[in-house]
Amino acid sequence: MKVLILGAAGMIGQKLVKKLISLTSLNGVKINKLILFDIVNAPHTAIDNMRFLIKSGDLSKETVCRELISEKPDVIFHLAAVVSGQAEKKFDLGWNVNAKGSWNLFESIRYVGNGYCPKLIFASSIAVFGAPFPNKINDEFFTTPLTSYGSQKVVSELLLADYSRKNMVDGISIRLPTICVRPGKPNLAASGFFSGIIREPLNGVEAILPVSTKTRHWFASPKSAIGFLIHAVKLDTKKLNNRITLNMPGISVTVQEQIESLKRVAGNKIAKLIKHKTDPQIQKIVGSWAKDLEAKRAIDLGFKAENSFDDIVKIYIEEDLKK
Amino acid sequence: MKVLILGAAGMIGQKLVKKLISLTSLNGVKINKLILFDIVNAPHTAIDNMRFLIKSGDLSKETVCRELISEKPDVIFHLAAVVSGQAEKKFDLGWNVNAKGSWNLFESIRYVGNGYCPKLIFASSIAVFGAPFPNKINDEFFTTPLTSYGSQKVVSELLLADYSRKNMVDGISIRLPTICVRPGKPNLAASGFFSGIIREPLNGVEAILPVSTKTRHWFASPKSAIGFLIHAVKLDTKKLNNRITLNMPGISVTVQEQIESLKRVAGNKIAKLIKHKTDPQIQKIVGSWAKDLEAKRAIDLGFKAENSFDDIVKIYIEEDLKK
Repeated sequence: MKVLILGAAGMIGQKLVKKLISLTSLNGVKINKLILFDIVNAPHTAIDNMRFLIKSGDLSKETVCRELISEKPDVIFHLAAVVSGQAEKKFDLGWNVNAKGSWNLFESIRYVGNGYCPKLIFASSIAVFGAPFPNKINDEFFTTPLTSYGSQKVVSELLLADYSRKNMVDGISIRLPTICVRPGKPNLAASGFFSGIIREPLNGVEAILPVSTKTRHWFASPKSAIGFLIHAVKLDTKKLNNRITLNMPGISVTVQEQIESLKRVAGNKIAKLIKHKTDPQIQKIVGSWAKDLEAKRAIDLGFKAENSFDDIVKIYIEEDLKK
Repeated sequence: MKVLILGAAGMIGQKLVKKLISLTSLNGVKINKLILFDIVNAPHTAIDNMRFLIKSGDLSKETVCRELISEKPDVIFHLAAVVSGQAEKKFDLGWNVNAKGSWNLFESIRYVGNGYCPKLIFASSIAVFGAPFPNKINDEFFTTPLTSYGSQKVVSELLLADYSRKNMVDGISIRLPTICVRPGKPNLAASGFFSGIIREPLNGVEAILPVSTKTRHWFASPKSAIGFLIHAVKLDTKKLNNRITLNMPGISVTVQEQIESLKRVAGNKIAKLIKHKTDPQIQKIVGSWAKDLEAKRAIDLGFKAENSFDDIVKIYIEEDLKK
C-alpha cells in the first residue's frame, strides 16, 4: 500500500509519519511506500521494508498535484494548510493553498481515471463555525466561518463531498478540535496560549495568559488527532450516507480547568509560571470560537478523544516533554 | 447608477430587466445604465434616459469578468448559472460556471480596488440542502447538498461571505424557493412538473404529473423572486452581522394543494388536463428536496412571499398567460 501525506512536515504530519512507520500496515495491508509532501522536505526516520519518497512544492500549482498523484497512492492524508492567522493576513495565499490547493488535489485524482478512487482523509477544523452559536454545537449546525481559513476549510469539505458522491474519490472530512498541547516553540496563532500555558511551565518557562480564566474552548490531544486520522482510514464511508464531514470529539474546558489540571498533574509551583496579562484583541478573537460540541455522530462511529484535561497534560509529558 | 445583471437572458433575469426599466431608479438613485450579461445576448426594450450595454460570454473566463467589472457597476445581480440537471451531468461545466465563475466575478471586483465595493446580490437556492432534514428547515440548518449544483451554490455563498467580510464587495446571498409558475415551454428539470401542472392546463394543454399528489415542496412566484432581489438591494447588510446568506420565504404546499388551487382559480374542468403518470426516478429526486422552511430571519428583515398557492396561480395568469 502506498500512503501520501500532504503537510507531512507539520506537527500532526510528523506524528502521523511516526505512527504509520510504527504501525507498518493500514487496514491489514502492509505500507510499502510513504510519500511525504510539504512546502519543505519532511523529516523522517528510514526503516527497512518501507520506501520513502520526499517531495516539496506548492500545492496550489496544478502540476505539483498531478505529479504527486501520478504515484497513485491508495490512502491520502490531506493535512496541508496555510494556518489561520496567515490565511487571514494573506488573502491570496490562503485561498490559493487552502481552497484551490484542495481542488487541484481532487482534480488530479479524478484526472487519473480508470476507476482510481483512493481513500482521502481531509483535516478540517472547528474554524468552520463562527459566533454566535449555541453553547453546545450539534452535528447539524450550519457553517458561518468568520475567518478566511474557516471558509477555505468549508469549501474544501464541499468539494470533497461532491467528488466523493460522484465516486471520483473516497473522501472523509474530519473537523479537528484545537489540538493541545502542541509541542515545540510558541507560534503566533491566537490560540497558541492554550498550549503555551501548559507547555511553557512544564519546561520551567513563564507563560503569558492573554484571556480570562473563564474562557471555554474545545480540545483534543495530538495523540487523539492521530487516532482520528487512523480511525477515519478504517471507516467504511458508505455508512456516512454522503455526509462525509464529521465533527471530531473533544473535551470542553475553561482555562481555569486547564490550570487546575496542570496543578494536579505537575504541582502548584509549576502552575505559578502562568502570568495573567489580558490582551483584549486575543480575548475578542478567542471569544468568537466554538466552546463546546456534541460530536454525536463521530462518537457513534467510534472516534475517541480524552475524557479529562488531566490526560491531555499527561500525554504531552509522555510524548513530547524533553526528559 | 449602473446596474449589472448576470444571467439577464434567463427567466428571472428577463423579469428583473423589465422591473428595473419600470422602476427607473434603485434606492432613490436613477439607473442610467443597465449592463446585461448572459451566454447569449439578452433581449430588452429600450427606453429613453437609460443606456444599455449588452454583453455575452463565458463567466468562467477571467477576462470576461474583468471586462464586465471594468464598467464599475454600483449594483450587481448575479443570477447566472448552469441549471441543476445540466450541472449534474456535466461536472466540469457546472463547477466552472457556477463556482469558478462566481469566484472570477468576486476576484474581478477586488481587482478594481481603490475602495470599489459594489452591492452584489447572489441568487442561491434551496438546493444547498440535502435530505434527510427536519420537516421544517430552520435558519441555522447545515448545508449538505446532494447535487453538484447545490454544492456550487454553497461554495459561491462562502466565497461571497468572505470577500464581503473583507469589505471587497458588499454581498448578500438569497436562497430562492422553487419558482412557480415558470412561464414558457416545459424544460427538462426534474422540478419542471411543479409549474407544468398549472401552466399547461391553463394553456389548454395536457400536463403529466410524475409524482404522488402528497409530494410537498417549497414555492414562491417569479414576482416574489423579483421582490426578493429588489428588497435585497435596499437592505443594509450591516444588519446581517456577517451572516449574509438568507433563506427566502415561500409557501409549503403539496401537489394536491396545488391542484385544489388551480381548481379554485380556473375551474375543475381545467384541472382535468392533469394526467397522473408516476415516474419513480423523478419521485425519488423530488423526495430528496426540502419540503418546508422557516425563513424567520428573512421575514423579520422584510422579505415577502405569497401566503397562498391560489395567489401563485393568479400571478401566472396576470403576468404570463397569453390572453
